[in-house]
Amino acid sequence: LDERLPLKKFSDFLPVVGIKPELSLGEGDTPLLRLGCLGRKQRLSYLFAKIESQNPTHSFKDRGTAVSIQKAVALGFKRFGTVSTGNMAASTAAYGARAGLETYVFLKEGTSRMSLMAAGVFNPHLVTVKGDYGCLFYESFSLGKKNNIYFSNSIDPFRIEGYKVTAYEIFLELGNGAPKYVLVPLSSGGHLIGLMRGFEDLKKDGYISSIPTFIGVQAEGCAPLARAYERGESVYTRIDKAETIAHSISNPDPPGGNVILRMIRDHGGIITAVSDQEMLEAQSMLTREEGVFCQLESATTLAALLKLRHGLSLKSTDRVVLVLTGSGLKSVPSLESAGFKSRELSLEELSETRL
Amino acid sequence: LDERLPLKKFSDFLPVVGIKPELSLGEGDTPLLRLGCLGRKQRLSYLFAKIESQNPTHSFKDRGTAVSIQKAVALGFKRFGTVSTGNMAASTAAYGARAGLETYVFLKEGTSRMSLMAAGVFNPHLVTVKGDYGCLFYESFSLGKKNNIYFSNSIDPFRIEGYKVTAYEIFLELGNGAPKYVLVPLSSGGHLIGLMRGFEDLKKDGYISSIPTFIGVQAEGCAPLARAYERGESVYTRIDKAETIAHSISNPDPPGGNVILRMIRDHGGIITAVSDQEMLEAQSMLTREEGVFCQLESATTLAALLKLRHGLSLKSTDRVVLVLTGSGLKSVPSLESAGFKSRELSLEELSETRL
Repeated sequence: LDERLPLKKFSDFLPVVGIKPELSLGEGDTPLLRLGCLGRKQRLSYLFAKIESQNPTHSFKDRGTAVSIQKAVALGFKRFGTVSTGNMAASTAAYGARAGLETYVFLKEGTSRMSLMAAGVFNPHLVTVKGDYGCLFYESFSLGKKNNIYFSNSIDPFRIEGYKVTAYEIFLELGNGAPKYVLVPLSSGGHLIGLMRGFEDLKKDGYISSIPTFIGVQAEGCAPLARAYERGESVYTRIDKAETIAHSISNPDPPGGNVILRMIRDHGGIITAVSDQEMLEAQSMLTREEGVFCQLESATTLAALLKLRHGLSLKSTDRVVLVLTGSGLKSVPSLESAGFKSRELSLEELSETRL
Repeated sequence: LDERLPLKKFSDFLPVVGIKPELSLGEGDTPLLRLGCLGRKQRLSYLFAKIESQNPTHSFKDRGTAVSIQKAVALGFKRFGTVSTGNMAASTAAYGARAGLETYVFLKEGTSRMSLMAAGVFNPHLVTVKGDYGCLFYESFSLGKKNNIYFSNSIDPFRIEGYKVTAYEIFLELGNGAPKYVLVPLSSGGHLIGLMRGFEDLKKDGYISSIPTFIGVQAEGCAPLARAYERGESVYTRIDKAETIAHSISNPDPPGGNVILRMIRDHGGIITAVSDQEMLEAQSMLTREEGVFCQLESATTLAALLKLRHGLSLKSTDRVVLVLTGSGLKSVPSLESAGFKSRELSLEELSETRL
């Protein structure tokens, strides 16, 4: 049973020894799904989606939290915490509960009720903090030191190590190969750093000859890294006011930003941004045409592909992977306005209706 | 990639030939998680949960829909449908969209907005039907014949075949063994029938020497099968009015009911019922103590174990599996009333607070 754990399977690549399987919630090992319908439309025979919603708390964050919690417990911490606007809050609260640690979740003011509850059910200390989110991020580390709390924030190095596993899985799922392109939503930068490092590991060890081209995707209303990338700058400028419905990737001052800019430049990657409308349309395409209901933020990947398709040097046989980071269920409250209509009929009316 | 598909892996046991991987959404292969904390409290060293929320639409229904859709496409149907109150609606709509079939979802009057939307996003024909739900179930088959729609309802034989795979996975995850007890929520009966058949297959082929004892769990407010079981009757009596918050298992007239009663009697199984309060407490225990946030209905399994624990002949080394059928995220709207509290602090106040 334990050998099935991705953390065990790939432990040679991870900075953790003596992995405790009882701290796992069964993260990882998610499907790489071929998108046949969308692929045909884009003339891509090998378009894939990595379905991260099939993690324990329905987002990729679990992969990172799974490594952080191993470290926190190994270091003897009794308290665990994070600063988050959504997915990471639920993930951290879940793994904290699993490990029996006292857990602190610091939320941004205005965090949605859905996010609050998805974390709150695990019974952490929930604290909504008024003030600058970027400052809170750094403040949490000194609070952690003072109060003996291991803060596993978005760019915690052990969290990032967990994201490497996604790269190893994609490699195996493609029959020991690397895709040509990997598209991933870009917020703090931790996820993209982890994915790039994972493929770098594979190259270093001779499993692949070149690493994929990475495309990090931001929301136009909050795109400090896409702006810096376009201008060829190696240091990003923080955004004053984020305006996007893609809250999970709305980070005006991404802590891993400059590392990302350097890594993307070194590897010939791309950073781009898409509009809220483009995301919504891409989310709907994935749902209606492929049966894959992902979080709005995850759909930035398809939106970016549609936008960049003709500018990319892509043969129809090239493999392209969209990393769909979270579940559409978390978007449901925000879809209320979409107003799905259900026809109402009596059983008698139904029997007489031609369908 | 395709070989990883559970339907391929276990195809010798399934009535489908020429499985089309493009119809799959990556169902199955869910974790079997050891519940260490709850296990210790119950003096059970090997208490496990099968985490069915890690399926594509976050419930066990996907395993069944995955087989039904193979059959529907193989038979040449262009239309697919179901009658459901929740999870099955979303699952059917997702697989229908994936296969490019026109999909019909008949919902019971009063279906929650969350359920409506979780299915609606895939763009099926949604029809809310006023009138008797039991009648609608049977009516759908004649509607299907008339309109060339393959209705994959709760006891569709191919759907049930899909649930057998869960038994095979548990067997493998336990290192080629069967648990002593398997607890599963009980509504229409399809899921439990599939699980029992799966273990029967394993016994027939000599992989295990005896099949587990099954415990089917209903909600006290809608427990036609538990009532019949307690009275030793082989035919259940339909319930006039269901009164429970566990909507997903609130079926007053379960179509597979009499088959279940016979199978449970043949195998020495048990059918029991738990109250809404017991479910809520069990859901909270799983969430807070194990980090596993399951649907309320899934928590009936733990509630039943707590209730029956001392009446069961259980050694501390016996293996017990709770089948957690769906994700807690689907319960979030109904948890609104639970009123999670978040402390509100400014960044300055936070810095000065002793945590």
